[in-house]
Amino acid sequence: MIIYGDVGSGNCYKIKLLLSLLKINHTWVHIDILNKETQTDDFLSLNPNGKIPVLVLDDDRVLSESNAILGYVAEGTKFIPADPFIKAKMYQWMFFEQYSHEPFIAVARFINKYLGLPAERIQEYHNLQPKGHKALSIMDKALVEYDYLVGNQLTIADIALYAYTHVAGEGGFDLNLYPNIRAWCQRIREYTGYVDMI
Amino acid sequence: MIIYGDVGSGNCYKIKLLLSLLKINHTWVHIDILNKETQTDDFLSLNPNGKIPVLVLDDDRVLSESNAILGYVAEGTKFIPADPFIKAKMYQWMFFEQYSHEPFIAVARFINKYLGLPAERIQEYHNLQPKGHKALSIMDKALVEYDYLVGNQLTIADIALYAYTHVAGEGGFDLNLYPNIRAWCQRIREYTGYVDMI
Repeated sequence: MIIYGDVGSGNCYKIKLLLSLLKINHTWVHIDILNKETQTDDFLSLNPNGKIPVLVLDDDRVLSESNAILGYVAEGTKFIPADPFIKAKMYQWMFFEQYSHEPFIAVARFINKYLGLPAERIQEYHNLQPKGHKALSIMDKALVEYDYLVGNQLTIADIALYAYTHVAGEGGFDLNLYPNIRAWCQRIREYTGYVDMI
Repeated sequence: MIIYGDVGSGNCYKIKLLLSLLKINHTWVHIDILNKETQTDDFLSLNPNGKIPVLVLDDDRVLSESNAILGYVAEGTKFIPADPFIKAKMYQWMFFEQYSHEPFIAVARFINKYLGLPAERIQEYHNLQPKGHKALSIMDKALVEYDYLVGNQLTIADIALYAYTHVAGEGGFDLNLYPNIRAWCQRIREYTGYVDMI
C-alpha cells in the first residue's frame, strides 16, 4: 500500500502510528501542502477533495479521510472493539475529533507553527483557543475512569485523538492543565510499536 | 430507546430517517437549540459537548455524534456493507460529511433559515458558499456512476449526506446545478419507509 501524506500533519501521522503499531509494510509518499501538492490534477484525481492522507491499495483502490483509513487498516485487529456499542463509542470519539477538536487545535497549530502567527490571522488564532480548550477538557474528564477513551484497551479513537492532542502545545494549548490527557499520552508513547511524529 | 433532538436539524433528522427505514420504535424528545436546551446541566450530563442528537438506550447507556449513532443503529442491517473496503468508503463519506460539507452547508442554512441572515453574519454566509458548492460538486461527480454514494445499495453514508443536502437550498445552494444529486435525492425519497424532515 501507498500512503500519500506529511507526517507533520496529525491527520497523516495517525496513519503512520497505526501502521507502526501493526507492523504493516507500506510506501510513504511525501506531499507538501504548503507547496500546493494536494491541488495538482494528479492528486485531485486521487482525492477530489484535495486533502491528505490518501491510501492507495496494491490493486489501485483509493481511500481518503484519515479516520476512515484508520478503520480500514485496523479492521479485524485488537484496535477495533468487537462489542457494537463500544465500537460505536469509538466512532463517537473519532467524529468528535474531526468536528470538535481538529478544526480548532490543528488549525491553531497550523497558524502558529507553519505560518508563523501572521498578523492577519492572530484574531482567528485567539478565537480558536477556547474551542480547543473545550475539546481538551471533555477528553480530560473522559480519561478519569479508564486508561483509554473507550475503556482499558487502546483503540483507533485514541490514535486519532492522540495525533493532534500530543502536539497541542504547538497551537498554544498548555497540556499541563490536563493531567489525565498527559498520563494517557504517556501510556500511548510506551505502547509497543509506538513511533514519534518526527 | 430515546433520541434527544430537533428534526429540523439535519444531524438529528438523519437518525429519524434511519429509524423510519428500519421501523425501529423510539421516543423522540424535542430539544430546542435556540432556547439553549443543549447547555443545561441535565443535558450536559448526557453529552458534555452540548450537541444534539443524543441516543439513550433502555439500559441508560448514552451515545452522541450523529454518524456514530447511525453506525450503531444500522449495525447488522443492509445499510452497512459487509465488504471491509466498501464499509471504509462509507465511513469516508461520513467523515467528509462532518468535515467538508456540514460546516458549510448546515451553517449557511442555519444563518439564513433560523437567524434570518443578520447583517453581522452576511459576510460569513457568503464565505460559506464556495466551500459548500465544492462539497456538492464532489458528491455530484461521485454519483455519476452509481445510484448511491458507495455503489448501488443505500447505506448510512447516503442517509448522513442526504440530511443537509436535500435542504441545501435553504442555505442558498441551488441544487439545479447538480443533476446527479437531484436524482439521488429522488431515489431516497422513493425508498420504502422514507420519512420527510418536517
